[in-house]
Amino acid sequence: MRLDTSASGVFPISATPFLDSGELDLASAERLTDFYLERGATGLTILGMMGEAPKLSPEESTAFLKVVLARVAGRIPVVVGVSNPGLSAMVALAHEAMAAGAAGVMVAPLPSLKTEEQIINYYVMVCQALGPDVPVVLQDFPLVLGVSFSVPTLETIFARLPQIVMLKHEDWPGLSKLSRIRRGESERGDRRISILVGNGGLFLPQELARGADGAMTGYAYPEMLADVVQRFRAGDVEGAEDAFDVHLPLIRHETQPGLGLAVRKEILRRRGAIASAHVRSPGPKLDALDLAELTGLMNRLERRMARPA
Amino acid sequence: MRLDTSASGVFPISATPFLDSGELDLASAERLTDFYLERGATGLTILGMMGEAPKLSPEESTAFLKVVLARVAGRIPVVVGVSNPGLSAMVALAHEAMAAGAAGVMVAPLPSLKTEEQIINYYVMVCQALGPDVPVVLQDFPLVLGVSFSVPTLETIFARLPQIVMLKHEDWPGLSKLSRIRRGESERGDRRISILVGNGGLFLPQELARGADGAMTGYAYPEMLADVVQRFRAGDVEGAEDAFDVHLPLIRHETQPGLGLAVRKEILRRRGAIASAHVRSPGPKLDALDLAELTGLMNRLERRMARPA
Amino acid sequence: MRLDTSASGVFPISATPFLDSGELDLASAERLTDFYLERGATGLTILGMMGEAPKLSPEESTAFLKVVLARVAGRIPVVVGVSNPGLSAMVALAHEAMAAGAAGVMVAPLPSLKTEEQIINYYVMVCQALGPDVPVVLQDFPLVLGVSFSVPTLETIFARLPQIVMLKHEDWPGLSKLSRIRRGESERGDRRISILVGNGGLFLPQELARGADGAMTGYAYPEMLADVVQRFRAGDVEGAEDAFDVHLPLIRHETQPGLGLAVRKEILRRRGAIASAHVRSPGPKLDALDLAELTGLMNRLERRMARPA
Amino acid sequence: MRLDTSASGVFPISATPFLDSGELDLASAERLTDFYLERGATGLTILGMMGEAPKLSPEESTAFLKVVLARVAGRIPVVVGVSNPGLSAMVALAHEAMAAGAAGVMVAPLPSLKTEEQIINYYVMVCQALGPDVPVVLQDFPLVLGVSFSVPTLETIFARLPQIVMLKHEDWPGLSKLSRIRRGESERGDRRISILVGNGGLFLPQELARGADGAMTGYAYPEMLADVVQRFRAGDVEGAEDAFDVHLPLIRHETQPGLGLAVRKEILRRRGAIASAHVRSPGPKLDALDLAELTGLMNRLERRMARPA
Repeated sequence: MRLDTSASGVFPISATPFLDSGELDLASAERLTDFYLERGATGLTILGMMGEAPKLSPEESTAFLKVVLARVAGRIPVVVGVSNPGLSAMVALAHEAMAAGAAGVMVAPLPSLKTEEQIINYYVMVCQALGPDVPVVLQDFPLVLGVSFSVPTLETIFARLPQIVMLKHEDWPGLSKLSRIRRGESERGDRRISILVGNGGLFLPQELARGADGAMTGYAYPEMLADVVQRFRAGDVEGAEDAFDVHLPLIRHETQPGLGLAVRKEILRRRGAIASAHVRSPGPKLDALDLAELTGLMNRLERRMARPA
Repeated sequence: MRLDTSASGVFPISATPFLDSGELDLASAERLTDFYLERGATGLTILGMMGEAPKLSPEESTAFLKVVLARVAGRIPVVVGVSNPGLSAMVALAHEAMAAGAAGVMVAPLPSLKTEEQIINYYVMVCQALGPDVPVVLQDFPLVLGVSFSVPTLETIFARLPQIVMLKHEDWPGLSKLSRIRRGESERGDRRISILVGNGGLFLPQELARGADGAMTGYAYPEMLADVVQRFRAGDVEGAEDAFDVHLPLIRHETQPGLGLAVRKEILRRRGAIASAHVRSPGPKLDALDLAELTGLMNRLERRMARPA
Repeated sequence: MRLDTSASGVFPISATPFLDSGELDLASAERLTDFYLERGATGLTILGMMGEAPKLSPEESTAFLKVVLARVAGRIPVVVGVSNPGLSAMVALAHEAMAAGAAGVMVAPLPSLKTEEQIINYYVMVCQALGPDVPVVLQDFPLVLGVSFSVPTLETIFARLPQIVMLKHEDWPGLSKLSRIRRGESERGDRRISILVGNGGLFLPQELARGADGAMTGYAYPEMLADVVQRFRAGDVEGAEDAFDVHLPLIRHETQPGLGLAVRKEILRRRGAIASAHVRSPGPKLDALDLAELTGLMNRLERRMARPA
Repeated sequence: MRLDTSASGVFPISATPFLDSGELDLASAERLTDFYLERGATGLTILGMMGEAPKLSPEESTAFLKVVLARVAGRIPVVVGVSNPGLSAMVALAHEAMAAGAAGVMVAPLPSLKTEEQIINYYVMVCQALGPDVPVVLQDFPLVLGVSFSVPTLETIFARLPQIVMLKHEDWPGLSKLSRIRRGESERGDRRISILVGNGGLFLPQELARGADGAMTGYAYPEMLADVVQRFRAGDVEGAEDAFDVHLPLIRHETQPGLGLAVRKEILRRRGAIASAHVRSPGPKLDALDLAELTGLMNRLERRMARPA
């Protein structure tokens, strides 16, 4: 199974579970994979930034991806984040992942890239090094990476590099950007790319209306993301937005930069998906007040979900 | 009326209205002031970043602040943004504003400040230059200004500079920060400062629970902000959060960096508060799709507000 | 006299002299203008960043530019920095400057510009607003402004906007960039643009060898810059570099970000060009150690200059 | 041999040599170590940023450090760069290095650290994790890392963490900073720290005069750095500066951000210290013009060195 431009639906960005001691928790990795599968995931993304990939050793990355790929067992495509300051390490991990059954890899731009010419050249270099058989997801996440892609730059990259099959869209604001890309495809005949949105899904209904194919994000209630995408596709636009709005207070909470990962892992723990909410050092931690606040927000969500529409 | 540390409630960050031609629209300035007054404002902030202050000439700033101050006529305190790359221009505007009846001024850190020692020295210099009779609001807005304040830095500033009476809090994430400041006051006996929150109010209920005194932000439905603060103070915490959540989809939409100002002015125009949604160049503009999307979000809001709780 | 693409030689970036009290010192403005004229300036640039332009009121800017333009009396072209967060203020100052006899204006990109498409659109908007009769110098200064131009972006701008006649080149590193631009002109027939280099002239000999037409920078010994350019053009490449290297220790010292302006003004004061080295607040100040260190460096320079080649 | 606060002289930042194929070149690693030892190194730093450490696999880092430490054979202290986004990987490498005979480790702040409180907490956490027996060098390099240390922050860190024995000082401008730290030691009795300067040595004579103990930088003529430090200590301040100024044109050239590493490796290759100037991808490359320009600068240097003083 190779990722292609028809990919759609919900690809959760998987957390990487650790024990309280900080060790990789492969049992939870299996449980978490099941959690995503049972809640409507149409794909899965592992070893992304929210997967604490830079804090894993190469051996840990390998162990984790093998466990997840085995658990998925080909039922849905798995994308592996391979961003790395060195090209050869990136290529090594990508080839290892593909050999183990991954559907494609995700590559974020290096934070040191300053001009769009440099960005384009970087993706050309990366694709050449990966070889044409590795489908690539381009991650556009300026808030955290400090690298911005204009629409013409994305169009240049997509035109030159057919192996880039998906855009992980998390520019902010980014609604017009989505519309412009889709307009280029419909009006000028550009190759249609799969676009999954990130940022915790903060603008998912609006992004679907502008042409997104779904979400690639780690919000800890992936079943809602799946439900919203499904309703939207079935034509129930308002119903999709209603379902979404119920979760918006918690999405907003989980989207806090840095801290959000600790929130997300704690929700996953409470929902039984992982054994420990441990985030590797250096990383955010929740104190008693944070935990009580989260309880309040989760209780409100439960009550809202229980209410008839 | 001088601003002091007891300030609370809702201080809308006023837009600066222009005609479609780009000229300052003083008639709309009066109408907008009335709009804020009628919707529960307990104070008002003008010439902030969202007031497009850097795009006004000194003469325009003076004209605008005089019109607003005359219209307010002492009913609520008015804070005037005076941030400026030059100290003497800042002082001149501040003194002009105070002479015209302002209650205080707001000062953001210069984007060139790199260390917290530089930040502290900057506020010391600013306060000395303004003189002790000018109450100061410190704006903590790292996302846009690129300058971060740790809690110890804020505490040092508040301890050294008694004329700083208020923190405009818009760090993100910033919930723990609020709690830490309040803890320093209650446990260590630090001087209690007024804290009003920004960021469009995106976390207002959580921030009130952690000790904020209200909001200083320009969300185009200030009556909701006032309602939330009032309910919260009356002990109706869940009711406050319910009232807030109804607006969250639109708050989220208006909080988009850069673009949000165009959204906000368009809502204010639709609500009859200003004659034109014009944003001065260079600035964001809404296209037909953006306008239709906003209509959809506003319609959903109207329906939600019409629904019995 | 209108600036055009044939401009070359040395355009000092003029300091803006103040009295110790901080007031604009127009008498020193005249003296400083003479200083530049007598030391080989082939043009002059005022109200740049190093001219503390953002700390001048509109009235001060006008007063200063009129005094300088009157003193120059048409002998050399004068470029006026007009960068401003607001477009209409920029246009007003530019038109005022041109009416008073300026040869052109200089425009830096707004620090908020993130993509090269935004940069291009910004210069298109600026040129439209200025009108076709205002020659424009584009300032490329990523270190301070945080905005990077790739060569293709510059080429697009130069191709679309004929009124941009000069590039103030201070990217760092920037030597290959210069070569690429010149290659585009010679090999592809692009319009030849005037390129003057900044950064205190830190790489002037190398930049001349790669096709720069001279320097636009405020190093406090402009006669050396003029000498280097002249020798280089006369074919004495090694002699140019010898003359330059003598000054390199002091150039390096004056190129320190932020602090450099205080160093520069102190040298200008010691050389009799201005009455006071005052830098407006907030701004860098030299302490006793800094002043003694500068004395040492200037003494070494004097000794080196006195030595036979 | 443990690094302590008495460290001084010249600790070259070692390049990491690769074959043209990109493979680690351990034979050149030995040759390069000899090169540094023969040219006056009083210490050596490996696996720093200029050593392309983030592009090495853990196995390569281990192999390289073992070869270098074996070659040095205890003659001079070797500092190992261990900066890593994950704390446990940092600790593992540090302990491995110390076990293999390293004298200490160097830790740069994470680019994500925003406030000085976060910086302080980070170093506290790092030192706790490393354990008290690992001497630490703190790297202060805002230009590249985007993290700034004020003098009070450094003083707090040095006071709280006795195992930090050295400051690698490459703030820019940073001369006053040096003086302030030394003043705190002499006037207030702060613990005296070793300070070695970086930035290619661009301000070495001035920094020595302000209290630096030497240089920790990779300039490809380390014998000059050693000579300058020695002359300065012998009281020949002007002689030190004369020796330095001869090299300043090339230092300036090698200090170009990003590109400088390619220049440095090419000089080392030409000087016979390494077999290939290969920089791992993604990384800078020199074209024919760059190489010819470098030849010119090196020729000028040779001529200057041959000239009687």
